[in-house]
Amino acid sequence: MDIENIKALTFDVFGTVVDWRTSIIRQGQTLGRSKGIDVDWEKFADAWRARYQPSMSKVRNGEMPWTKLDDLHRVSLHQLLDEFDISGLAEDEIDYLNRAWHRLDPWPDSVEGLTRLKRKYILVTLSNGNVALLVNMAKRANLPWDAILGAEVARHYKPQPEAYLMTADYLGLQPGQCMMVAAHNHDLVAASQLGFHTAFVCRLTEYGPNQSTDLKADYDFDIVADSFLELAVKLEC
Amino acid sequence: MDIENIKALTFDVFGTVVDWRTSIIRQGQTLGRSKGIDVDWEKFADAWRARYQPSMSKVRNGEMPWTKLDDLHRVSLHQLLDEFDISGLAEDEIDYLNRAWHRLDPWPDSVEGLTRLKRKYILVTLSNGNVALLVNMAKRANLPWDAILGAEVARHYKPQPEAYLMTADYLGLQPGQCMMVAAHNHDLVAASQLGFHTAFVCRLTEYGPNQSTDLKADYDFDIVADSFLELAVKLEC
Repeated sequence: MDIENIKALTFDVFGTVVDWRTSIIRQGQTLGRSKGIDVDWEKFADAWRARYQPSMSKVRNGEMPWTKLDDLHRVSLHQLLDEFDISGLAEDEIDYLNRAWHRLDPWPDSVEGLTRLKRKYILVTLSNGNVALLVNMAKRANLPWDAILGAEVARHYKPQPEAYLMTADYLGLQPGQCMMVAAHNHDLVAASQLGFHTAFVCRLTEYGPNQSTDLKADYDFDIVADSFLELAVKLEC
Repeated sequence: MDIENIKALTFDVFGTVVDWRTSIIRQGQTLGRSKGIDVDWEKFADAWRARYQPSMSKVRNGEMPWTKLDDLHRVSLHQLLDEFDISGLAEDEIDYLNRAWHRLDPWPDSVEGLTRLKRKYILVTLSNGNVALLVNMAKRANLPWDAILGAEVARHYKPQPEAYLMTADYLGLQPGQCMMVAAHNHDLVAASQLGFHTAFVCRLTEYGPNQSTDLKADYDFDIVADSFLELAVKLEC
């Protein structure tokens, strides 16, 4: 790998930069206490995330027109409110709960690691999250992105090639000048097939204490690291 | 004006945030010295900028398909090289000169003003510049944008309504939750007609010492300021 050729690091966000599961559970518990809702919020968070890929699949396969993630999350949320027998929430309370995904906390190393990496590289999101979600998340969590790109501006959800290729194109870069950073093997495989460099960052508890996938790099990625700090060291930042 | 309702400031960039004319002249002079090119770089800069609106008009009126500003700049540059009788530049030197627009210097108050405004507001570009141009400019000049939006992601050049409305929509905001900041009356009029709040920032030498337009706010904008620092004070940042 020619490190000198890399100009931009393109980041998966959910699970790679932020700990969505713990954050959704925490916000659910807070809501539950204030509204007297007795729900297993761990199951609720997992059930919400379980609907993530199927909901995007409908857009990917053309069953639905382009729909941003906030709106897919909201459809799933309404189904979950029924399923978990949660009633009595006003529309603005449901909207606030839906935007829990705008208020996810970063992993402990994320802000310091990104800040170091930013000295040398252009840092952009290459996430399936929509722009508003990612801007609000970054503002709250101090994530120092140089630009918010990815699915919404490409109008294609990962792992469709357009999501990766249009992100590089918006930056005026070739895929080989970009390094995809993710905690998910499948995301890096998709990026690699298009010519991106790849960095796998292990996030062993993204899916909770019993996580069974993405515990290690299953392929020969350019870099494997345990944190963004180790990634910064390996990229000589 | 209800200041409390404003969530995002959307910025014109060329002339409002950065001093394109002095920056292009400076870079032209540097090139001229190193390559022995004897040209009036003030005239060259003005001639390049004079082709800016006509080149975008061809995209706006459908005469050309969507073309990003880097590519419009390049077509104009090739015409100017002929017109100013400049020869002997290699393709990579022409490319570097074309990207002079990625290396524009901010006005003296821009970085400090934006940094103050960022504490309270989402700061985004709403420029006709393409994403790569604006990302590279921000990286070099330390412009602390929360997101790079505007013409390229909207696929429409200002003052077409889509450029403004899609920027607000990407942020998940209504136009009335956004304030357009610009040194140009026509830009603010277009934004205002769509429901944006407006702030006119005077840049008296954008077009050089003999500037004759945009010397003052010609309409009743919400805020008129002499600098981003005064804008920050008026927005209670």
